[in-house]
Amino acid sequence: MLAVGRELLIGRTLNTNARWMGKRLALRGSQLAEITTVDDDLGEIASALRGCLERRPDYLVIVGGLGPTPDDMTLKGVSRGIGKGLRLSESALAMIREHYVKRNLGGMEMTPARKKMAVMPVGASAVKNPLGTAPGVRLELRGTTVFCLPGVPSEMKSIFRESVEPEIRRRLGKLDREYVSMRLEGIYESALAPVIRNELRKHPSAYIKSHPRGIKEGKSRIELDVAVVSEVRGKARKSVDQIVREIREAIEPEGATVIALREGQP
Amino acid sequence: MLAVGRELLIGRTLNTNARWMGKRLALRGSQLAEITTVDDDLGEIASALRGCLERRPDYLVIVGGLGPTPDDMTLKGVSRGIGKGLRLSESALAMIREHYVKRNLGGMEMTPARKKMAVMPVGASAVKNPLGTAPGVRLELRGTTVFCLPGVPSEMKSIFRESVEPEIRRRLGKLDREYVSMRLEGIYESALAPVIRNELRKHPSAYIKSHPRGIKEGKSRIELDVAVVSEVRGKARKSVDQIVREIREAIEPEGATVIALREGQP
Repeated sequence: MLAVGRELLIGRTLNTNARWMGKRLALRGSQLAEITTVDDDLGEIASALRGCLERRPDYLVIVGGLGPTPDDMTLKGVSRGIGKGLRLSESALAMIREHYVKRNLGGMEMTPARKKMAVMPVGASAVKNPLGTAPGVRLELRGTTVFCLPGVPSEMKSIFRESVEPEIRRRLGKLDREYVSMRLEGIYESALAPVIRNELRKHPSAYIKSHPRGIKEGKSRIELDVAVVSEVRGKARKSVDQIVREIREAIEPEGATVIALREGQP
Repeated sequence: MLAVGRELLIGRTLNTNARWMGKRLALRGSQLAEITTVDDDLGEIASALRGCLERRPDYLVIVGGLGPTPDDMTLKGVSRGIGKGLRLSESALAMIREHYVKRNLGGMEMTPARKKMAVMPVGASAVKNPLGTAPGVRLELRGTTVFCLPGVPSEMKSIFRESVEPEIRRRLGKLDREYVSMRLEGIYESALAPVIRNELRKHPSAYIKSHPRGIKEGKSRIELDVAVVSEVRGKARKSVDQIVREIREAIEPEGATVIALREGQP
């Protein structure tokens, strides 16, 4: 995910879009590989795009900077980054016109600012925005499918749900992903470290991560995430259960306890 | 800022550290140029580090992955990224020992997991962590000063305040930064676009950005940020005031109103 917007860099806005998308993908057995945020600046957008494409991801979702104002420059930045010109998309123009007509928003006049939202890199296609004016944009670049979505959370989410996610799910196929979060009490991270190391040796593809949660009533608390993804049906479940059992067996004799176990989602 | 941690990629945790640091720097006339988040993975950390250094920033702050558990691999990743070996830092070891002694946390024994927090790239120095166990790390790389800080927000903030910020302020010198946020009612972004374009022509170094805030009681609302940074004392203030006045003069005859004006910080 590439987020564009100075408001994210100056602490004005929390990147809740990234959290939403990350969670959504994780629940489906996929994962955001990287989140990058850059300024509303043509050079920054262009070079960040090139950096992202060098990783050769299956998908790149660019969020923000599609609106009518001059600070909205994502599509121009993408065009510069991939060395392709801009053109007016007739289908995008029709979507924008329809939006204004349907909502009766200040007449049907196609001002330059409104037209701007239909100008996209050559080869790109417009994606319907069910809630707002600026259409999303889809293009294929060297094996990566790039989506550009508006930064307004409700619009980003609705396009993602309707147009991005179905495509990702088709390409990824079915993955089993199991996740458990254990809340531990009475153990320090430094004492838990060798236990985790041992589990990772036994289950090399598992994800096990500890988050210190401070000291409450004189006892150290840790939140421990365990996740396994597998293409084999039932295997992820089995591995997660086994890891949880083994961790219990390793820490309980040392006086630590598992005070809560939460399943299902990150 | 380079954030390391899968919890940020799977939607488990919001990157509030990035917001805090971005705001803190913006208030002092500086700015985060980029925020990148990657997984707890040696290759990912190493290549993200190289990508960040290619931008030749004055500072790079890496957050997360300094603890005692195996998933904490930031320093190993940095070492790989810059092609330098790891060594045990005696001063870091002393800091860790002091922390355990002072808090009487499970004895003074230097287990391998505790020692791990003192292993850092050759040439790096340990930075005191006033609140937690894992010391921060500072190193100079091709003109960029790199700080590695723990991801626990309280610890990150305390090291940033005590050791990172004073250095940044010394290097940056004094900049004037003025900021105003205008809340507008009764105007659409597409109608505001030419007004902003005109202001940016008159004040090319200004930052002007609009955020749509939906439609309330039939009227479109927009939040408009205006910011100017200048080395000349008083100039930023004057420019911001002038931009606000000119925007008022442009939109009020069209029936739009400024319903609130907030100064001072993003």
